[in-house]
Amino acid sequence: MAFDFELKHKDKKCGARVGKIVTAHGVIDTPVFMPVGTRAVVKTMSPDELKEIGAQIILSNAYHLYLRPGHELIKEAGGLHKFMNWDGPTLTDSGGFQVFSLGATLKVTDEGVNFKSIIDGSSHFLTPEMAVKIQNDIGADIIMVLDECPPYPAEHKHVKEAVERSLQWAKRCKKSHQSGKQALFGIIQGGIHNDLRKYSAQNTVEIDFPGYGIGGFSVGEPHDIMFDVLEDTVSYLPEDKPRYLMGVGNPTSILEAIGLGIDMFDCALPTRVARNGTVFISTGKLNIKNASHERDFGPLDSNCNCFVCKNFSRAYLRHLFKVGEILTLRLLTWHNLHFIFNLMSEARVAIQKDSFLNFKASFEKQYRN
Amino acid sequence: MAFDFELKHKDKKCGARVGKIVTAHGVIDTPVFMPVGTRAVVKTMSPDELKEIGAQIILSNAYHLYLRPGHELIKEAGGLHKFMNWDGPTLTDSGGFQVFSLGATLKVTDEGVNFKSIIDGSSHFLTPEMAVKIQNDIGADIIMVLDECPPYPAEHKHVKEAVERSLQWAKRCKKSHQSGKQALFGIIQGGIHNDLRKYSAQNTVEIDFPGYGIGGFSVGEPHDIMFDVLEDTVSYLPEDKPRYLMGVGNPTSILEAIGLGIDMFDCALPTRVARNGTVFISTGKLNIKNASHERDFGPLDSNCNCFVCKNFSRAYLRHLFKVGEILTLRLLTWHNLHFIFNLMSEARVAIQKDSFLNFKASFEKQYRN
Repeated sequence: MAFDFELKHKDKKCGARVGKIVTAHGVIDTPVFMPVGTRAVVKTMSPDELKEIGAQIILSNAYHLYLRPGHELIKEAGGLHKFMNWDGPTLTDSGGFQVFSLGATLKVTDEGVNFKSIIDGSSHFLTPEMAVKIQNDIGADIIMVLDECPPYPAEHKHVKEAVERSLQWAKRCKKSHQSGKQALFGIIQGGIHNDLRKYSAQNTVEIDFPGYGIGGFSVGEPHDIMFDVLEDTVSYLPEDKPRYLMGVGNPTSILEAIGLGIDMFDCALPTRVARNGTVFISTGKLNIKNASHERDFGPLDSNCNCFVCKNFSRAYLRHLFKVGEILTLRLLTWHNLHFIFNLMSEARVAIQKDSFLNFKASFEKQYRN
Repeated sequence: MAFDFELKHKDKKCGARVGKIVTAHGVIDTPVFMPVGTRAVVKTMSPDELKEIGAQIILSNAYHLYLRPGHELIKEAGGLHKFMNWDGPTLTDSGGFQVFSLGATLKVTDEGVNFKSIIDGSSHFLTPEMAVKIQNDIGADIIMVLDECPPYPAEHKHVKEAVERSLQWAKRCKKSHQSGKQALFGIIQGGIHNDLRKYSAQNTVEIDFPGYGIGGFSVGEPHDIMFDVLEDTVSYLPEDKPRYLMGVGNPTSILEAIGLGIDMFDCALPTRVARNGTVFISTGKLNIKNASHERDFGPLDSNCNCFVCKNFSRAYLRHLFKVGEILTLRLLTWHNLHFIFNLMSEARVAIQKDSFLNFKASFEKQYRN
């Protein structure tokens, strides 16, 4: 079997759970954070480094790979794993989110979506069948259905139309997906509307997928509303399938969502903020550009045992950043990924002991956003 | 003894020689290529990677470090080695070349040179004593005297003045250099004028340094003239001291100079061209941006066993380059440094066998500039 999910333990005091996803390229312990490698590379990082830090699965993006270098080229290369030299599990997003969020949507019909390339302005028409074909060519272990992602805020009526269309597209994706080696996940939409989330969840589950993405969050809605709706949404999802909260990567948000029963996360945030000079440390965020670090010869985080904290000082990392040396972008990315992977690992241990809520409270007490 | 040079073998058929430089931070086999880490970092590379590729000594630049982050800060950090986390040998250039070549020289007097900062336009006055003090604070194993570097072409009279002034400055540098842990090298100038090179060499040797840089080459003069003058210059240098040809890093030029008895090289070229997409392979230069590599799933160089050639295809490296992913800058740098270090290593083996000229001819036959 190319894909399997095993629910190993549920925390007795909350919705948090640990599980195991089996793919053709290896096993993933959940809850898991998937670093974003949009263009077949996690920015600044080589695959061996990602492995060393503890990445279990890499996310890449069908939209970007379709435009450059092209899915046929990746197929010719022997697929995404071979192309980027990452032999572990992979996931591709369908491109739905990018088509709708990069502001280049020309027209949406029931048939598909017409959009303009962000590269050269050329016009493209993406259908559910094409989204699957592109992802089949790319060859990730987990692929996603094409969905319509309305912006936030959006009227109930507009979101409902998007949910209905996404359901039709999900059915067509499932029908056209042939490769038994890849698992096709459905995606729940519905914005911040509980009734639409319920409707989307129940009907997507009805189609039956090996896992479920929850899309359309973290697009500008208030955090408390997001978690209220998320909690409700999760209640309509089966226990025996992995639940993937798309695009959420803030440490505190991740912990909140784990507590509600989420198994998988992806987000560009930890790597993007690193490239802007911000790192996560046990007491919160730290901006390496601050003058206070100029003569600080200690590590980013004295509680951290990552390669960067063991070898380089804040003063050195700040110097590199200030003079524009790109090594620092990699080192800050390294630290942030280590921080998030370590957080997930500690969360898994806590869940096994039914003490996730204590772990979360203790983290939140120390960590200032 | 903090510094020593042992001449181990001279090729019986040419001037090439192998030797051993001993520093407080380790031993260096010569001929050696020193990668350039201008701002306390070899661009894109971490120190552990440099070690893995085979770097024996790293060059950094007193001019740039004086401006940012400041030599006092590096001293506070415990010196350059600790600051950048490189525990092997290091060398700093005095800043003479940068002051004169970055086009910001305001006035040169016998006392020193007044220049404008390339960062903020502020005015600075650099004396031989200050150049030594800055380098003492930075703490590299080998440091260089402050010299005046005339542009090319320059009139004989102008070059002669620069040589005379550089000799006075060399004496002052030696006098003010106190640290027994650091070896201060003299620098031969004289442009393309044999008489001035002879004068500079004889008088610099008279001052007596543990090693000699040969500066003012590779600044635009024709290659054949450079090698003619270089051969003559070397003849005035003592056999028992290392000879360092400053700023030359083209593979064929390196071999030519090794044949004339040069022991040390530094140059930004191998790392700089890498960041522009050019790599050295056994048949010559290759530009990864070329369309011909778009679907080439083979390595950069099928004869190369470096990390990059073992793990990544031309198609992938080209893709990364085209979409602006900086991982490729590191990977191309890695390959080029490996190429140069490997060339030096093969040259050392050939010299030991008195077959350097054969090795050089065979390399040149295959390698197209």
